[in-house]
Amino acid sequence: MTQRVAIVGPGLLGGSLAFALKAKVGAHVRVWARRTSAVDDVMASGCADAASVDLAEVVRDADVIVFATPVGVMAKLAREMTQHLKEGALVTDVGSVKGPVCRELGGIFANGPAHFVGSHPMAGSEQTGLSFARADLFAGAVCIVTPMADTPPEVASRAGALWESVGGLVRILDPDEHDGIVASISHLPHLLAAILVNSVAESEPKAFEYCGPGFRDTSRVAGGPPDMWTEILAQNRGAVRKALDGVIEKLQAASTILAADSPERDLLMNQILTQAKAQRDRLRLPKILSDV
Amino acid sequence: MTQRVAIVGPGLLGGSLAFALKAKVGAHVRVWARRTSAVDDVMASGCADAASVDLAEVVRDADVIVFATPVGVMAKLAREMTQHLKEGALVTDVGSVKGPVCRELGGIFANGPAHFVGSHPMAGSEQTGLSFARADLFAGAVCIVTPMADTPPEVASRAGALWESVGGLVRILDPDEHDGIVASISHLPHLLAAILVNSVAESEPKAFEYCGPGFRDTSRVAGGPPDMWTEILAQNRGAVRKALDGVIEKLQAASTILAADSPERDLLMNQILTQAKAQRDRLRLPKILSDV
Repeated sequence: MTQRVAIVGPGLLGGSLAFALKAKVGAHVRVWARRTSAVDDVMASGCADAASVDLAEVVRDADVIVFATPVGVMAKLAREMTQHLKEGALVTDVGSVKGPVCRELGGIFANGPAHFVGSHPMAGSEQTGLSFARADLFAGAVCIVTPMADTPPEVASRAGALWESVGGLVRILDPDEHDGIVASISHLPHLLAAILVNSVAESEPKAFEYCGPGFRDTSRVAGGPPDMWTEILAQNRGAVRKALDGVIEKLQAASTILAADSPERDLLMNQILTQAKAQRDRLRLPKILSDV
Repeated sequence: MTQRVAIVGPGLLGGSLAFALKAKVGAHVRVWARRTSAVDDVMASGCADAASVDLAEVVRDADVIVFATPVGVMAKLAREMTQHLKEGALVTDVGSVKGPVCRELGGIFANGPAHFVGSHPMAGSEQTGLSFARADLFAGAVCIVTPMADTPPEVASRAGALWESVGGLVRILDPDEHDGIVASISHLPHLLAAILVNSVAESEPKAFEYCGPGFRDTSRVAGGPPDMWTEILAQNRGAVRKALDGVIEKLQAASTILAADSPERDLLMNQILTQAKAQRDRLRLPKILSDV
């Protein structure tokens, strides 16, 4: 039987999931958008079978509902949709922060009729919006599913199956553990990239004319949407600050090492770089297509 | 008349330049390597017409000599080769730091018979060695030529023509100005990437299993060769420390912003991210092939 999927929010992730589910699973896909112009864009893109600004119409009879909106509006939309959901439907989301989302949405859906579990597909790029959406966005991407202690295992399994069906590599993590990990490998790197760019812009504005691939890559994520990232950093600020302060401490130590005229200077710096290379080299990165 | 080019050092940059000069210019290319096994590798790769451990043999009759060794051994090799050079030959290098190199090599070649000017092609990746060399490495890459105040303009022009002949986009900078700029866009980003990797490895070792394209790109350069980067950071440590301390200050300010519970918190963070996005978006990056 054809699976019916409702995607709430027509951005890069929602649109890509719609394309992928139609292309790879043959799902019947409906998309909710806040504005009628976005509804028109969704229909023109061909990613969905139906699209509407009417949330009840989009989620009714859906087997799976996926939130692909900013994290801050999910709770309000969740409350609006509960009464229209099918018994036993699966609800998940694509938010980058999971502790607060899972607690809030978990509470809203605790009394049924649907089951909620959080998700975080580690896909996307600094490009945003439906116009960059593509069916292969999740192919080879790590997709983290974050059940709470009281989430039935089959609910997490169904969310995992959803991401696997579009090519994702599924991992299971506790929501708060997830937030500590993504603070380190996503939120902190975003802040570092943004501050690197700002620092160069202020101290060496001419430098932008001379950039090579190194700066291009280390700074790429700084091109991401400021509003989304402000929300992410605020939602996960405890873990982000911990990670940030750890990096600041190491940078200060590096500055002190560089300041020295002793023969140990290069030895100590070499140790830092050798350790980093060893760690970076052992990264087994999923092959992800053209996200430069 | 066929141009004769001697390349001193058979690594990623030297090997790629050899391939490019043969493929695009039809130059007669000789490569010097320190070890006989490397000489064999050069000949097996097909990048050169001749290769030898005998420096005099490699540079004799050459119209152009390019140092592609670590910066620290250039002066010694320069002193060894001067007496064997052709009158009016052009000598340049590919070192990542230009002030110290240009002063030292400029002095060695000041009395002829060859003319020296520094170069820095902003190409390459964290991969090193002849096995990664390729003829298109410099295609679309910014190649900086760094004449000193007393360098005759035609010497800088000849070096520029060399890089243009292999597809480079030539820029001219004073050596010390170059060092300030690359401290910001290359040396500092390298150190940030290395310390980010080390920090994650210590505080969230599990995190490496969950990395997406963001961490892949922001950390990529940390896979570069530690010995080469130790030397670069030491040679350019004044400018690197200045850039590093500027970033540390901004990171501390960001940590303070994140710690606040006031309504200004998200506004201030949004300003940082908005400024960074605006700067990053205006980067006109040369299109560089597959260096991921």
